[in-house]
Amino acid sequence: MSFSASVLTLYPEMFPGALGLSLAGRALERGDWSLQPVQIRNFALDKHRTVDDTPAGGGAGMVMRADVLARALDHAAPEGDPRPKLLMSPRGKPLTQARVRGLAAGPGVVILCGRFEGVDQRVIEARELEEVSIGDFILSGGEPAALVLLDAIVRLLPGVMGNERSGEEESFENGLLEHPHYTRPQEFEGRPIPDVLISGNHARIAAWRREQAMKLTAERRPDLLAEKPSP
Amino acid sequence: MSFSASVLTLYPEMFPGALGLSLAGRALERGDWSLQPVQIRNFALDKHRTVDDTPAGGGAGMVMRADVLARALDHAAPEGDPRPKLLMSPRGKPLTQARVRGLAAGPGVVILCGRFEGVDQRVIEARELEEVSIGDFILSGGEPAALVLLDAIVRLLPGVMGNERSGEEESFENGLLEHPHYTRPQEFEGRPIPDVLISGNHARIAAWRREQAMKLTAERRPDLLAEKPSP
Repeated sequence: MSFSASVLTLYPEMFPGALGLSLAGRALERGDWSLQPVQIRNFALDKHRTVDDTPAGGGAGMVMRADVLARALDHAAPEGDPRPKLLMSPRGKPLTQARVRGLAAGPGVVILCGRFEGVDQRVIEARELEEVSIGDFILSGGEPAALVLLDAIVRLLPGVMGNERSGEEESFENGLLEHPHYTRPQEFEGRPIPDVLISGNHARIAAWRREQAMKLTAERRPDLLAEKPSP
Repeated sequence: MSFSASVLTLYPEMFPGALGLSLAGRALERGDWSLQPVQIRNFALDKHRTVDDTPAGGGAGMVMRADVLARALDHAAPEGDPRPKLLMSPRGKPLTQARVRGLAAGPGVVILCGRFEGVDQRVIEARELEEVSIGDFILSGGEPAALVLLDAIVRLLPGVMGNERSGEEESFENGLLEHPHYTRPQEFEGRPIPDVLISGNHARIAAWRREQAMKLTAERRPDLLAEKPSP
């Protein structure tokens, strides 16, 4: 069984979107993963296909109904479906590369994309949704975040990257930001490639890259140096 | 002049993608913002339209050439263009809602989407690119991150949200994660809406929501409580 992603959304036409092209798109065509967009509106209970209502207690915006979302979730992931059920939400736990690796090693994901003000808390609890945040900013809905999450997962699936990337030296894989890169031409607008990189001395090059990565991380992301390695 | 976004990419067909639908799509049609995808490959210097080369010093993957990217950037943003030039990169400064607000208040953005191992460091320096990260995870390229950044910006542009959202009570706008939401039905699978929310007592409701937001933030994101307010 290849990795299977079900995405519950009011905008199924947003998928596969960017995931239908390039690396992820070729992998999708090959069947290295599969994608099932599910229109939440099809699980509404009335003839107007209503999915939201005003917030209890008042306030701006609309809230997505627990009963409608539960029906959509139960359809996409019937009892016994082993895939984790995620809700893209700025209230969630920040996504990390370690979590992406964990998800990529599993059977797939069921992703609920919220819209409007948010989703009724009771469906989050009753269906044990894992709230996942891709960052401290607000989107129009969960869909762009779902595209990002799936892109991050798919590139790690067996066979997807091929020889394009080793996947081992990148930012976060070793807890550091990545060192600077250079390529031809040897000189660009008066700026040469650093001597060490054309020295042919592999030990010196490795040491320089490590030092650059440490320096960059200390400057930009001291929080990463302070962290314990993820379990 | 409405907000103008130029996106430099090897996959211009990924745009507008999800941004062509829903809130952002309607705003694009109305001209509340504009989007110009730019194919980097058109600025290659050889007949094979080469945009990358092997990394100086060795290693896996390919690096995007400084000279090709500089030509594409100079075309998209000629001298005097007031828009900030961003590079989507996991090495960048983490994106915040405050930065999104700042960008939305400006004339637009020029976004360079990296692919492969990364881009030659010299074009980052020579063109003073601002490296922006949407999170501590690795994508196949900058494109999904650019879609997220633009989605976050566009919803804040004048006229875009209309009455759909007040935009004032959300997560991060006040430095806290948002309180839980509830809506009809009154009872869902034996779970009632909390009494306070149907009390009609607005002061009690506001106090309860604030308390819930504080509690959630303390549990999930103590780092937000420790932070100073952004300037």
